Amino acid sequence: MEIVTSPREMQTKAEEFRRKKLSLGLVPTMGYFHEGHLSLIRRARADCDVVVVSLFVNPTQFGAGEDFERYPRDIERDERLATAEGVDVMFAPEATDMYAEGYTTYVDVERLTEVLCGARRPGHFRGVATVVAKLLNICRPEVAYFGRKDYQQAQVIKRLAADLNYGVKIEVLPIVREADGLAMSSRNSYLSPEERRQATCLYRALARAQALFAEGERRPAKFLDEMAAVAKAEPAAEIDYIEIVHPLELTPVPKVEAGSVAALAAFINKTRLIDNTIIGEEDLKVGARPC
Amino acid sequence: MEIVTSPREMQTKAEEFRRKKLSLGLVPTMGYFHEGHLSLIRRARADCDVVVVSLFVNPTQFGAGEDFERYPRDIERDERLATAEGVDVMFAPEATDMYAEGYTTYVDVERLTEVLCGARRPGHFRGVATVVAKLLNICRPEVAYFGRKDYQQAQVIKRLAADLNYGVKIEVLPIVREADGLAMSSRNSYLSPEERRQATCLYRALARAQALFAEGERRPAKFLDEMAAVAKAEPAAEIDYIEIVHPLELTPVPKVEAGSVAALAAFINKTRLIDNTIIGEEDLKVGARPC
Repeated sequence: MEIVTSPREMQTKAEEFRRKKLSLGLVPTMGYFHEGHLSLIRRARADCDVVVVSLFVNPTQFGAGEDFERYPRDIERDERLATAEGVDVMFAPEATDMYAEGYTTYVDVERLTEVLCGARRPGHFRGVATVVAKLLNICRPEVAYFGRKDYQQAQVIKRLAADLNYGVKIEVLPIVREADGLAMSSRNSYLSPEERRQATCLYRALARAQALFAEGERRPAKFLDEMAAVAKAEPAAEIDYIEIVHPLELTPVPKVEAGSVAALAAFINKTRLIDNTIIGEEDLKVGARPC
Repeated sequence: MEIVTSPREMQTKAEEFRRKKLSLGLVPTMGYFHEGHLSLIRRARADCDVVVVSLFVNPTQFGAGEDFERYPRDIERDERLATAEGVDVMFAPEATDMYAEGYTTYVDVERLTEVLCGARRPGHFRGVATVVAKLLNICRPEVAYFGRKDYQQAQVIKRLAADLNYGVKIEVLPIVREADGLAMSSRNSYLSPEERRQATCLYRALARAQALFAEGERRPAKFLDEMAAVAKAEPAAEIDYIEIVHPLELTPVPKVEAGSVAALAAFINKTRLIDNTIIGEEDLKVGARPC
């Protein structure tokens, strides 16, 4: 596996792949790989001639007071894992190369970014959209892979790619969960053993939503009440939001339907976790593998 | 010359050119060609294997009450002129294809867009940056050509291209002027014969600035006063702004130097015209040809 840090060198390399008619799959990550990342890499490896994994803890998507500095990093472990998965190129730029002095250009996806996490983390999706626009220009993939745990992010990126005519296919793969249901996340590393157990309340709230739907319930208020009750049964959890939204518009639904998305965010002490499920789909199976 | 209206078809075609290792030059225009446009096309024709001219009156860069509806259009004449210049592809999309239903993504270049025309036309450069980002993604040029009459626009696009890692060369070519000095502009077609004569006051104000510099004057206030006096001597002209700015930062200079940019905008009755000159350069020659 080759490691590239220069955006220009990465761009030249990607252009060479294109000229050789090799399909390029990009897996954008902030590193500290877990099985979720690996599921994306494996899918890219199965789909594409060349697999590029970008590893960049993007400062512009973190707000003041958020966890940019302490976000977990272990590039050597990530290199080993990526090599073992047959990744061709790891693109790991420095922040000073991605945002050089005088940098002033930002990409805004309106509407979709004004709800859910976007309403709680001002500027977060502007940072995400901007860095993804840059990564797509640098790596010129035919397909880019994202995890569905960041459901809103995936929708924002799909919108961005279509609106700005990137001509890239955005693949969004299922959430990979621990054996007890906790969605895999690099931020799970912040949790103490006790918090780790408490954190399963997000999964349990989503499981309650799926059960309600299976029982024939369709009133959003009922879902929100029962999900909140499950989450609040865990005293350490502080709910940031719980919503049932349209899968594309991300607006609250008047009636819960198959395909509606139940999404929530909660703090376990200082650690903010998110999770979601597509109502009526069997995607809460633990240990599920997307490929 | 081939005429393409579908963004997707244009993108596929551009990709084919790249795979054949043909260099592609893009000349983005709003049509209604004059010698300024043709100078860009000729330069692209001299530089590149394939020349693509885009023709799109971009609605998102016009403000409410501006001249989007009445902006001059004559696509048949533009086609004849482009064909005569050896253009390979004219890309002329419909607004509904460029901004499909649900469109919500915009590109902002901060700072550079907050002064000069940007301060007077809120949202204008957001529209420009967004459509240029789209055109660069659709056409994937190695070089894109812009006229220097829109000095601020050219700087915004250079910044955008660098910040978002487009890997494209932005070529900015000199202003082409009528025999009496008026900078060529599609909007000159709005002018009555009398207004047409009055409109030369912009050029005369810039000529005064160059003369002052040649005489050794360096105080910005003196330049602004004298340029305003020249423009105001034309009673039909209403000055929108006159400034002397740093060529890259676009901020007012404390001292006029070679390379500073004198820029102004003025209304001749209802028609808003802009012009500029690089101080100390001989770029006010009438009938000058850039190639």
